[in-house]
Amino acid sequence: MEITAKTIDKFVVNILEEVGNSLIIDTTKDKLVDTKRDRNDLVTNFDKSTEKFIVSMIKEGYPNSTIVSEEGFGDDVKNMDGLVFFVDPIDGTMNFVKRGDDFASMIGVYLDGKPFVGGIIDVMQKRVFHGGPELGIYCNDKKLPNPQNKSLREGLIDISARMVLSDWLNTKEIVKNSSGLRVYGSAGIIFEHLLLGKEVMYMSYLAPWDLAAGRVLCEGAGLQVTSVDDTPVNMLKSQVVIAGTQKVVSEVLKTVKNCD
Amino acid sequence: MEITAKTIDKFVVNILEEVGNSLIIDTTKDKLVDTKRDRNDLVTNFDKSTEKFIVSMIKEGYPNSTIVSEEGFGDDVKNMDGLVFFVDPIDGTMNFVKRGDDFASMIGVYLDGKPFVGGIIDVMQKRVFHGGPELGIYCNDKKLPNPQNKSLREGLIDISARMVLSDWLNTKEIVKNSSGLRVYGSAGIIFEHLLLGKEVMYMSYLAPWDLAAGRVLCEGAGLQVTSVDDTPVNMLKSQVVIAGTQKVVSEVLKTVKNCD
Repeated sequence: MEITAKTIDKFVVNILEEVGNSLIIDTTKDKLVDTKRDRNDLVTNFDKSTEKFIVSMIKEGYPNSTIVSEEGFGDDVKNMDGLVFFVDPIDGTMNFVKRGDDFASMIGVYLDGKPFVGGIIDVMQKRVFHGGPELGIYCNDKKLPNPQNKSLREGLIDISARMVLSDWLNTKEIVKNSSGLRVYGSAGIIFEHLLLGKEVMYMSYLAPWDLAAGRVLCEGAGLQVTSVDDTPVNMLKSQVVIAGTQKVVSEVLKTVKNCD
Repeated sequence: MEITAKTIDKFVVNILEEVGNSLIIDTTKDKLVDTKRDRNDLVTNFDKSTEKFIVSMIKEGYPNSTIVSEEGFGDDVKNMDGLVFFVDPIDGTMNFVKRGDDFASMIGVYLDGKPFVGGIIDVMQKRVFHGGPELGIYCNDKKLPNPQNKSLREGLIDISARMVLSDWLNTKEIVKNSSGLRVYGSAGIIFEHLLLGKEVMYMSYLAPWDLAAGRVLCEGAGLQVTSVDDTPVNMLKSQVVIAGTQKVVSEVLKTVKNCD
């Protein structure tokens, strides 16, 4: 298929809508739940089957691309040359298993290392956020305005529970300077909140598949995504990432620096 | 009007539906935002007008009742004799102002000190949770099954950001023993999560109007609501409250005790 932002955007949206329809039904079914790194790092039979489906669709549509994916059905990607797809079949698996809401499926597409197209489906709300720097950002068929460039004081922020509990990187100080802390437990859902201007910052330790789609969409919406030492994020490793409005990211980077 | 659970339940649901319809429109309007105890304790013109409306409806329907309410349009209630209404016009005002979702309106009704009828509307999801110990618990017209009696290890919990950040009452230890922490920022929305079995515990410092409706509904659904020293909650003062499954509340009380 054609390597244009428009074609790939449509391709990604179609896959995510199909995944969403199937996962909505699955929330009512029994899940085979297994753990990965620790007892709260969950994976289900649905994570695996969904990833297999997405990977097979990509292999069919773009056989010359490479795929970085969470559950191991992708490729062993060593560099960002050409077209690279990042796949998170179920983001927020804990929410999927325990809540049946606030989980997402995500596909991020990069061309020669540059953010190209991203798609996040909020499965239970049936909302697909998609687009990129070239196309602008959409929620389903509706074009979204860029979120306002608010300051930390003016907005709610979401930081992973793990970071907050250990006060890692001065997170307490950051929360104190904001309107308040929220913890929703799914990167995809929190990227949605940033795109809609419901929150002004998200900080968490993220793997490439947690970050890829959200980064494309944030950058397409005038938001900033960076690593904590203010270097560009590396899409082939896990790292602490700050995403938010330009103002908030600059404020947070200062607070993070002060904790050395 | 008649003082029966069924009549009051219908009365409460009607008021909350009317409030919900009006607040959904208000989320798109400019808000006059003011602060109360600190810069993150917000009140808007809509909190005040909504409370005035609810109080006037109660005064009309049940002129002999007394009203405990957040914004000061109720009565100066000194005891729990007779019929007492607790009114929180907008619960989660910060979410209302900053997010436009995850906020609620709540009415709790007590008869001679006993939980009688409760109603919580999740405004943006158009869901009214209502009923009580006598009637059972409903989401709109659908009767809800009681949530499973899960243990701490098996479920997500919600603790107010303020408590988590200060590790007040051993909250870190409690989070560590659970499936994970979520922070949604509205008591009403979190009581909804407990009733639907999406979370197994909620701990926060709550005023009477934050707690009243949620307590009625939780107790009607077989959940437990208690103060941290395991004495019955006092409905005429603010206090730290633990609400959750029987198993989780008993586990959490043990952890809280260990922090002396």
